[in-house]
Amino acid sequence: MSTEALKTEVARQFGTPAVVIDLDIVERNIARVQALCDAAGTANRPHIKTHKSPVLASMQRDAGARGITCQKIGEAEVMADGGHDDILISYNILGEQKLDRLGALLSRAKITVAADNPTVIAGLPRAAEIAGRDLDVLVECDTGRKRAGVTSVTEAVALARDIASRPGLSFAGFMFYAPEDAVTGTQAFLDSALAGIHEAGLTARIVSTGGTPSLVNLGKIKGTTEHRAGTYIFNDRMMLAAGMATLADCALTVYATVVSRAESDRGILDSGSKTLTSDTGGLEGHGLIIEHPEAKIARFAEEHGFLDLAACNLRPNVGDIVRIVPNHVCVVVNMVDRLITVRGGEIVGELPVAARGRLT
Amino acid sequence: MSTEALKTEVARQFGTPAVVIDLDIVERNIARVQALCDAAGTANRPHIKTHKSPVLASMQRDAGARGITCQKIGEAEVMADGGHDDILISYNILGEQKLDRLGALLSRAKITVAADNPTVIAGLPRAAEIAGRDLDVLVECDTGRKRAGVTSVTEAVALARDIASRPGLSFAGFMFYAPEDAVTGTQAFLDSALAGIHEAGLTARIVSTGGTPSLVNLGKIKGTTEHRAGTYIFNDRMMLAAGMATLADCALTVYATVVSRAESDRGILDSGSKTLTSDTGGLEGHGLIIEHPEAKIARFAEEHGFLDLAACNLRPNVGDIVRIVPNHVCVVVNMVDRLITVRGGEIVGELPVAARGRLT
Repeated sequence: MSTEALKTEVARQFGTPAVVIDLDIVERNIARVQALCDAAGTANRPHIKTHKSPVLASMQRDAGARGITCQKIGEAEVMADGGHDDILISYNILGEQKLDRLGALLSRAKITVAADNPTVIAGLPRAAEIAGRDLDVLVECDTGRKRAGVTSVTEAVALARDIASRPGLSFAGFMFYAPEDAVTGTQAFLDSALAGIHEAGLTARIVSTGGTPSLVNLGKIKGTTEHRAGTYIFNDRMMLAAGMATLADCALTVYATVVSRAESDRGILDSGSKTLTSDTGGLEGHGLIIEHPEAKIARFAEEHGFLDLAACNLRPNVGDIVRIVPNHVCVVVNMVDRLITVRGGEIVGELPVAARGRLT
Repeated sequence: MSTEALKTEVARQFGTPAVVIDLDIVERNIARVQALCDAAGTANRPHIKTHKSPVLASMQRDAGARGITCQKIGEAEVMADGGHDDILISYNILGEQKLDRLGALLSRAKITVAADNPTVIAGLPRAAEIAGRDLDVLVECDTGRKRAGVTSVTEAVALARDIASRPGLSFAGFMFYAPEDAVTGTQAFLDSALAGIHEAGLTARIVSTGGTPSLVNLGKIKGTTEHRAGTYIFNDRMMLAAGMATLADCALTVYATVVSRAESDRGILDSGSKTLTSDTGGLEGHGLIIEHPEAKIARFAEEHGFLDLAACNLRPNVGDIVRIVPNHVCVVVNMVDRLITVRGGEIVGELPVAARGRLT
């Protein structure tokens, strides 16, 4: 059906706001990034934080991905339930409650975790003991993002040795989430770290890089074995701004209704911070309205999107349905229990965001 | 048990991040605001957007609230299922899908809605027809917030007449969500609007004001019949900043674990924008860490809170559990399926956030 008819039908069946993904675009995005990884000789280990759906993860796997990445044990549990058996949890796991769950996961799937400090490493053998098998551990290294990750090669090598010395743990390699402009520094860090562990008689089976914007660097850091990208499956306004996607690559849009036009130069959408979230991604305004690209979503209340229409010649009326590309798609998916799926301009059904709300 | 023991026990049972409410503080907050409303002679119609729990709404009702306020039909449906039968949906309702649901709701509960434009009003008789009873409609008026709401008395009176002329609709009065400093302007708007409708032979049974910060204005706008406040049940860092609450009044905290300390002056919490959300509420930093008030939660990744510890003399270690008062509590509750409840320093259980995820 036409775009207008589809909008009307989504609103008729589900009401607005509605979070809709186009499966044709999803498949194209999956195929394109898989081809990029294949061409670079890098394994593709997509980050499921973006979609939180075992079904979409299976589409990525079936297209050639080797394993998946999760950020939380709860996400990994849902993915394992959905048949995924090669999972990297790219996060420091701490505390008995999580270590016990990690052990249970390890007993039924191949699990790798990351660590950037001795306290985390000291806890991990508990999980291996529960599972009765070794746990692969990556050392998380930071070359400029200033998030998690050791910032010195000396520390990275010391942690690798620490891991290798622990019962039940296997040092598996290094994990990076480098800024896009840090190729040279990351290469230098990696080369030194590899030299350091070789001196200690260790080898790195895995060197993992991450990020959708960093797809431009695929193949540039020698020694990389796999890449973790998440956002590319849907894309968003940040990826548009970064030149990583065109509007035709944006698979997820939020359908919203204009509910108020109290004055000529402003209006209200029925989508606020409880749908689109306040993540700006560093951009001005919240989301691109496809039908009114000159309109600005200036700010949010929880259920109100404040439209600044001053720059619009054609302004929407109360009752109009618009489609919004959100600034940051990963956090929008996390707001909803289901994504509405469309294909070829027709509604296909609904897809549960199965790992949504798994905080821990 | 001690605070330290409680933190350990919450982490042991639930892991972190954990969203915890103290029922003793909740009850005190409910009682205090009820007393404020009673003293002002204003009915208390709490906004359930903050907690989304029929159980907590019942506590508010049992303490003296007269009805509740919802922002979405889906919230109202959950509240009606939970036994609440006097509900104001303070929002423009548009579209057949929602009008049909509004009709079904109206057939089983006393429902009032707000409207600020003729398009919305023209749709509402459909709901009344489905229910076979009249629907009460308030005219939403704006005296400075520039969100929804008509900005002129002439429009307000015209909409009141429009409502009164429609089959199945009953003009019930006016709804405001005025800025805290707009008492005089709101009084003037209301007085003129009341004069206007009296000329048309109409009366306003309801004059509704809203907002927790506006509790300081209770009783100041003559003619007000009810007040809608939400945040007061839990409070947050915005309410602390506004002088509306002390730390002892903050009923909700997010328990988080320090998972990384890659450098001396910074660290990472296991709570990012998917738990605490990026709503700043206009404040610098994201959340107050009770144990380290000089620490700053400088920014977020989805599952990482970036700690700036430069101003801290006593700095947390990896593995430490801290409690965070979020900037904006309403959006944090909306991230989780359950709140962990404590009373007298002991874990009581879990409370479902029953209306979470009701987008429409």
